[in-house]
Amino acid sequence: MQPDREGRVALVGAGPGAADLITLRALRALEAANVVLYDALVTADVLMLIPACARRIEVGKRGHRASTGQDFINRLMARFAKAGARVVRLKGGDPSLFGRAAEERAFLEAQGVRVDVIPGVTAASAAAAQFGFSLTKRDTARRVLFATGRTARGAAMDWAAAADAEATLCLYMGCGDFDDIARALIARGRAPDTPALAAIDVERPSAALIKTTLARLSGLLAERGSDGPVFIAVGEACQDARDADADKRDRPPAPAHRSQQI
Amino acid sequence: MQPDREGRVALVGAGPGAADLITLRALRALEAANVVLYDALVTADVLMLIPACARRIEVGKRGHRASTGQDFINRLMARFAKAGARVVRLKGGDPSLFGRAAEERAFLEAQGVRVDVIPGVTAASAAAAQFGFSLTKRDTARRVLFATGRTARGAAMDWAAAADAEATLCLYMGCGDFDDIARALIARGRAPDTPALAAIDVERPSAALIKTTLARLSGLLAERGSDGPVFIAVGEACQDARDADADKRDRPPAPAHRSQQI
Repeated sequence: MQPDREGRVALVGAGPGAADLITLRALRALEAANVVLYDALVTADVLMLIPACARRIEVGKRGHRASTGQDFINRLMARFAKAGARVVRLKGGDPSLFGRAAEERAFLEAQGVRVDVIPGVTAASAAAAQFGFSLTKRDTARRVLFATGRTARGAAMDWAAAADAEATLCLYMGCGDFDDIARALIARGRAPDTPALAAIDVERPSAALIKTTLARLSGLLAERGSDGPVFIAVGEACQDARDADADKRDRPPAPAHRSQQI
Repeated sequence: MQPDREGRVALVGAGPGAADLITLRALRALEAANVVLYDALVTADVLMLIPACARRIEVGKRGHRASTGQDFINRLMARFAKAGARVVRLKGGDPSLFGRAAEERAFLEAQGVRVDVIPGVTAASAAAAQFGFSLTKRDTARRVLFATGRTARGAAMDWAAAADAEATLCLYMGCGDFDDIARALIARGRAPDTPALAAIDVERPSAALIKTTLARLSGLLAERGSDGPVFIAVGEACQDARDADADKRDRPPAPAHRSQQI
């Protein structure tokens, strides 16, 4: 801490998980940080980039688990910044896509704290790159809809939008409600055999792909289970997906249901 | 060229424009490249990262201008890779979002050429970070729809999807048809005073913001004109946007219509 210096907060996108998928700007922000508050989904590889002299605090928030409250995180960031610290708030993916950047920025600026945002590679882009498909594809995947997989029994989804057959539907943050979502999409006219995939642990050693159809994905996900991040995509663009590098990655001894191509 | 070595192609996302917003993996791919084929929108700052010994070829494609054909680009990449070169195909933003990654990958793999994709920061994430808004926002911006601004008189848009009032609509690649798009959105029920913005030359020295409403954006864009990349967003999330750093950037002597907050 240097109380005579003006503190500030950078909301930094850590990207999907691999340390070499953060941007140069994010790396420099980490290297200059006094304090780093990081989410549970930020990987050990990325955390290795934090200087030894910086204080690191996990403020994990995960789906249905116990988690650090947003108010507490906000107040912690403000306190450190006002004490002169360079604070990095490190988030998986990109801060502006389901990352609460607006809330954190508004709180901090209301407290007189300067805030910068450093964008990151979002999970959809990384999943597509790793598993050989493209989010858009001429003629068959003209649009991409990003939504959250936690829809509180469908209340927060616009089904007309999600049923757009020319869009790739990308679901962030959890797959717990995907069974409901898949049923609703099929009821609104998306074909049950629409290609669909779950990209599990993207850009981590445990990365795995489930490639199947809209009707079958929910069952396969439940069967497999996952503790890590799961990214779901639905649409014609998913047809191209495959896990070309599965054999090259380190993996646990019993890779049950790894890369199911069904 | 090293004809005894196996050539390969990396489709690399250059991010929005600033050299420090490419990923470490993209930087390493550039440093190892023998040949770099780059789009017109890749900035001089990013091109500076290419080693002096690498061959660089512009294969620009821009909206309504004369451009290099996709077939020609595909054949050129295959030819270099088969001659043993490490080829980087450098694209603005992320290759999987409106970047033709699927087409280029399919062509090259059919020719027996190994292809890797390195994801990048997409324009929407960068525009949000630079101009102080978030693409998602609890309660008011639950989803994000990525579409192209070139819709051939609306033929390629799903209007039910685009009219989703809880989504941030992000338009890539050109704003030539935005007048038609805005009228259609209003006809389908989006409020004329929905916040809307154009982020011009994101992460370039000439960056500028037009923040206004859905009904007025098209007129302001036409009045201003732009040669560079224009990213358009429509939705409640745009309400937070502002150009806090406008005064700090280098800019041309007569910054007419710069950062209009109307």
